[in-house]
Amino acid sequence: MNLLTSWRPGDTRDRIAAFLDQSDALAPAERVAVFDNDGTMWCEKPAYFQLAFFLEQLKVAVAADPTLAERQEYRALVTHDDAAIAALGLPRIALALADLCAGMTADEYSARSARFILEQPHPTLQRPFGHAVYQPMLELLDALRHHGFATFIVSGGGTEFVRAVSQQLYGIPPEGVVGTLIEYEYLTIDGAPVLRRTGTVAGDANEGPAKVISIQQHLGRRPVMAAGNSAGDREMIEWALASPGPSLGLLVDHDDPDREFAYDSVAGTFESTESIVDIARREDWTVASMRHDWTTVFPCHS
Amino acid sequence: MNLLTSWRPGDTRDRIAAFLDQSDALAPAERVAVFDNDGTMWCEKPAYFQLAFFLEQLKVAVAADPTLAERQEYRALVTHDDAAIAALGLPRIALALADLCAGMTADEYSARSARFILEQPHPTLQRPFGHAVYQPMLELLDALRHHGFATFIVSGGGTEFVRAVSQQLYGIPPEGVVGTLIEYEYLTIDGAPVLRRTGTVAGDANEGPAKVISIQQHLGRRPVMAAGNSAGDREMIEWALASPGPSLGLLVDHDDPDREFAYDSVAGTFESTESIVDIARREDWTVASMRHDWTTVFPCHS
Repeated sequence: MNLLTSWRPGDTRDRIAAFLDQSDALAPAERVAVFDNDGTMWCEKPAYFQLAFFLEQLKVAVAADPTLAERQEYRALVTHDDAAIAALGLPRIALALADLCAGMTADEYSARSARFILEQPHPTLQRPFGHAVYQPMLELLDALRHHGFATFIVSGGGTEFVRAVSQQLYGIPPEGVVGTLIEYEYLTIDGAPVLRRTGTVAGDANEGPAKVISIQQHLGRRPVMAAGNSAGDREMIEWALASPGPSLGLLVDHDDPDREFAYDSVAGTFESTESIVDIARREDWTVASMRHDWTTVFPCHS
Repeated sequence: MNLLTSWRPGDTRDRIAAFLDQSDALAPAERVAVFDNDGTMWCEKPAYFQLAFFLEQLKVAVAADPTLAERQEYRALVTHDDAAIAALGLPRIALALADLCAGMTADEYSARSARFILEQPHPTLQRPFGHAVYQPMLELLDALRHHGFATFIVSGGGTEFVRAVSQQLYGIPPEGVVGTLIEYEYLTIDGAPVLRRTGTVAGDANEGPAKVISIQQHLGRRPVMAAGNSAGDREMIEWALASPGPSLGLLVDHDDPDREFAYDSVAGTFESTESIVDIARREDWTVASMRHDWTTVFPCHS
């Protein structure tokens, strides 16, 4: 049975199909596949969806309290001061934005995230953000499950932003999402326990080698398949490919400016300045060209 | 259908059965149950199984390299110097013992743990450690799953010690176990990625309020049922009971010196000096008396 109906016949689909067949020889507990999220499962342009979400939260917060715009990071954002944004750097901006949600309970944050993802229109793709997921990757998740695989999301983004919709979009429950974690504060109010988000990231951002470590710590299983699209996915893909037995390392190549976007991810932060697609081809990973290998990019929603 | 065949008819079983019936009204995603491990799912006397495992590792290591016994913590253990052990304290001893496994891969550690748990005889119970699990609690796991619950282990012990056998003993996959985590080191050897345990604990030991936080961070779901047996489970049980809708907080009372052990857990470390059983009765949790409520304590193995 071919579940990969949005994958065009050719070498990439053949390699995936061959891996699925070979994986039947693995013990059930060894059938583990991990997927990066931004740019691998859903679109990450023109900006990360979570950044768009935080900017929307900022807009609402500044409307309610204009003095917020006095904070350097927020001022740079609301005045679209690209030079100031670049000078401050994304990590600092991201932390300042995470502060907007400090004090929320997990339920509040989750409800806001889900509403944004499922309802807010993507700026260019004529659909809500949450419909800008890749149909061929959803089919790959289904095909893996059909072959007895446990499937997980291993994202560099905020764990709970993805968890808010992971069951609905991917059929993956909250505990199947591993990402960058926020610290929580436990307190009791009038004798009742309350858990609140802080603005502090717990541990490292979940990118590069940290993804391999978080897979071990949070899932406790070694993947035999890993999919990604950026330099921050390299170690995770190499980790899957280094497992004994059948394995698959899949890289999504964003080479389709007509239907999605065209851009390179350069491995600058992690040791190299080579494009991740060049690394993938050199190391003989399986490269999914969005332009050539996918007949459909996004799901049809009536 | 009564799946709770090792639970004696009475108030405790009635309360559990009533909760199971009421929980059918919950949305599937809300049916989440968490279980402490030591003293709740398996026996924790005369010592934590993981401590017994580490002591066995120490015995083997000292036989191979007697100079190891010069380290203060190891000397106290191999000479059974209880005064020195008490003076050093369990956290320091535990870290020194964890050091014995530093440098191992996850697979090596997991294989050693599984072998110990499944094969090493418990010192007093005439069965391997891994057979000293509580039959009524296994039945409760089954009954919960029968009612559509997702079930998780939330242990104060080492995550990967429990994960080594969680599927086999409890039907819970590795990612369903949340415990105290060890840091890992990611490195490449001859170009191949390698992940090695360190001797450092990542974050806090998973006890008390930390259990509530780790449930949120690692599972991302709020439990409506929590089971425990010690002071370190109090916050997790209160967290489950504070959820809106039907909930169950279950405390295992070790009051059966004939079939298991009789002992109290005093909430000294966490704000109070009251016995956890007294707290449970005062707060109207459901108390499972091992002596009165369980017709069978351990599974029959032919």
